Amino acid sequence: MRDAYVIGAGQSSFGSFPEETYLSLFESAFESTLNSVEGELPTEVIDEAHLGTLGVGGRQIGLSGPAVTEHIGLHGVPTTRVENACAASGYAFRQAVTAVRSGMVDVALAGGYEVMTDTSADGTKWWLGVSGETEWERISGTTFAGVYAQMASAHLEEYDTTVEDLSRVAVKNHANGAKNPKAHLGFECSLEDAVSAPSVADPLNLYHCCPTTDGASAVLVASEEVAREYGEELIRVAGAGASSGRVGLFQRGTLTSIPASVRAGEAAYEEAGIGPENLDFAEVHDCFAIAELLAYEDLGFCERGEAGRLLREGVTDPDGDLPTNTSGGLKSKGHPIGATGTGQIVEAFEQFRGEAHVQTDRPRYGLTHNVGGSGGGVTVHVFEREEAA
Amino acid sequence: MRDAYVIGAGQSSFGSFPEETYLSLFESAFESTLNSVEGELPTEVIDEAHLGTLGVGGRQIGLSGPAVTEHIGLHGVPTTRVENACAASGYAFRQAVTAVRSGMVDVALAGGYEVMTDTSADGTKWWLGVSGETEWERISGTTFAGVYAQMASAHLEEYDTTVEDLSRVAVKNHANGAKNPKAHLGFECSLEDAVSAPSVADPLNLYHCCPTTDGASAVLVASEEVAREYGEELIRVAGAGASSGRVGLFQRGTLTSIPASVRAGEAAYEEAGIGPENLDFAEVHDCFAIAELLAYEDLGFCERGEAGRLLREGVTDPDGDLPTNTSGGLKSKGHPIGATGTGQIVEAFEQFRGEAHVQTDRPRYGLTHNVGGSGGGVTVHVFEREEAA
Repeated sequence: MRDAYVIGAGQSSFGSFPEETYLSLFESAFESTLNSVEGELPTEVIDEAHLGTLGVGGRQIGLSGPAVTEHIGLHGVPTTRVENACAASGYAFRQAVTAVRSGMVDVALAGGYEVMTDTSADGTKWWLGVSGETEWERISGTTFAGVYAQMASAHLEEYDTTVEDLSRVAVKNHANGAKNPKAHLGFECSLEDAVSAPSVADPLNLYHCCPTTDGASAVLVASEEVAREYGEELIRVAGAGASSGRVGLFQRGTLTSIPASVRAGEAAYEEAGIGPENLDFAEVHDCFAIAELLAYEDLGFCERGEAGRLLREGVTDPDGDLPTNTSGGLKSKGHPIGATGTGQIVEAFEQFRGEAHVQTDRPRYGLTHNVGGSGGGVTVHVFEREEAA
Repeated sequence: MRDAYVIGAGQSSFGSFPEETYLSLFESAFESTLNSVEGELPTEVIDEAHLGTLGVGGRQIGLSGPAVTEHIGLHGVPTTRVENACAASGYAFRQAVTAVRSGMVDVALAGGYEVMTDTSADGTKWWLGVSGETEWERISGTTFAGVYAQMASAHLEEYDTTVEDLSRVAVKNHANGAKNPKAHLGFECSLEDAVSAPSVADPLNLYHCCPTTDGASAVLVASEEVAREYGEELIRVAGAGASSGRVGLFQRGTLTSIPASVRAGEAAYEEAGIGPENLDFAEVHDCFAIAELLAYEDLGFCERGEAGRLLREGVTDPDGDLPTNTSGGLKSKGHPIGATGTGQIVEAFEQFRGEAHVQTDRPRYGLTHNVGGSGGGVTVHVFEREEAA
């Protein structure tokens, strides 16, 4: 099996853009992606596209993938629209990696787009509700915040996790996002702010929840031969892990873990031949503060119940052992559902290139972790920077 | 690049099943698929799933892919939901083929499901409308029948195609579907019926339009090593072609061809190393009668403008040179949007096995052709039966 490499990655600004469409947002992300490639990549070399989105705010819904690629001039390029809720573009990236590994294509585009701030009747916010389990959770009125609040309550009860620990996720991620000019909520917040904010779904308050965001992101995946043409140092997809899980929280055996994250992480580490101890940075899915704590434990950054300690000790701060969500994460950079998975890979790409806004020491290994719904589908990717031969 | 093989394929009955859900329909398709495999395939060997659907009739929408695989017992198996309108499962199959070819997985499940007869406000019928181009076609009130009617009008004007030729598609496909116990409209119709039916969108009448159907279908794709364990004769995916096109009809340069079909067909033939003259049967996307005529021309079964002649001369009848839509096609077997692409492959599988309800001489090469919307995305697959070594 041949290897796949990331040769470019870029995103639109994340935020609230009522004047933009999913087409113009993706156009901006694609332009940024092409600009990130070392050298000039002719778009004719792009063989295939895999695009993630949940829905697009009352505009084109069926076949929006081809509508996007035709709009950006990739005429005729086979385009698959992937929908796995908030993990849509994590899965789209997985397909692009698979396509390059298969040898069927040499260059594949992965990406995502979402218009979330359209509040019309058929807008995407409605969609977000239907990504929970429908027959029991949704119909009984449980929102996503409600589902994650149940996980948070359980974690607070089972371990010595506190509301302050949840708030530390916000403080850290906002501090990072404040340095990211493309972040949706690019401002800092104090621990006091993040502890005393109004309640959304107890114990989660406003600072424990990510915003609803418009945006797009894109990544170019290529064979080794192409990658060597467009870069001194190669960024290899060392491990591609994915797993599904029961969509409804009540259908699982645990409230304090997302089992699909555990399985996807194990698969990615195994393929990469490394463990969490080798990681130099991570972007994890912090749709709610508790989700970042669960990610630390599910991905083996620490033992069960120890996530709060990691935050208190600053292990995942930019100057800690495992800087996490240096982009600002979903909490501060924003969460344009279908664009989030490849948006995380944009940050990974910039870290490897030494061009991140909150730059870690030049990393060798990095990880991205993208969760659909409350854990019905998860992708984990491990990347390795290979120095020039 | 290693080859991918079809080792099993099955479907639920296609029809109107208000008492069924997308889960129960897929369960039935999956059971039929497992039963079609030679020998007993343990479900634990299924590494990955790719499932196509447009929407699911007001039930689970976001993350319905994992909901399906968890329901049928494929716990934790990475599942990607693909949506490319009516070509959703054609593209899902392409992903499964890619995954096996990559070496990442040995057995992949492809399939699709749709509940179309739920007429509630958020049911899938609404969805079908949004698979047309939104900003001009949909908002100006153009339906899918209207879009295909424009193509039919142009073909009738440009060539010597007649309304009788359109009606011959219905006569042929209903004659085939009448022998298929899983067909939605499993009855014959006369040429007189099919010419004199009430108008839907002139020149298309009721017999020129496929029904809206509930159903599910599934296909198992495997590596050669696995395929040899589960079959005497191998069914190889000889060519996998796909292409996108402008979603709106008005955005293209032609009304009498679907350019994405031409490109997808050329790619599939090229990879297979054969041409249309080598085909022993075909399943083409006859959502409207004109679509079958366009397919003949776009896929090279005949020259431009000659499709009507093919029908008049019986070339695509079961005893003709290139039997087409022996399953009954979308017109008679039915069109459960997301289930149609892999549903066509079920017929191909049965033809190769010699188990089809309208069996052609034991074929060597067959083709399936699946169109999203009015041509925004198309997949074409060429299959080859390889005799036992």
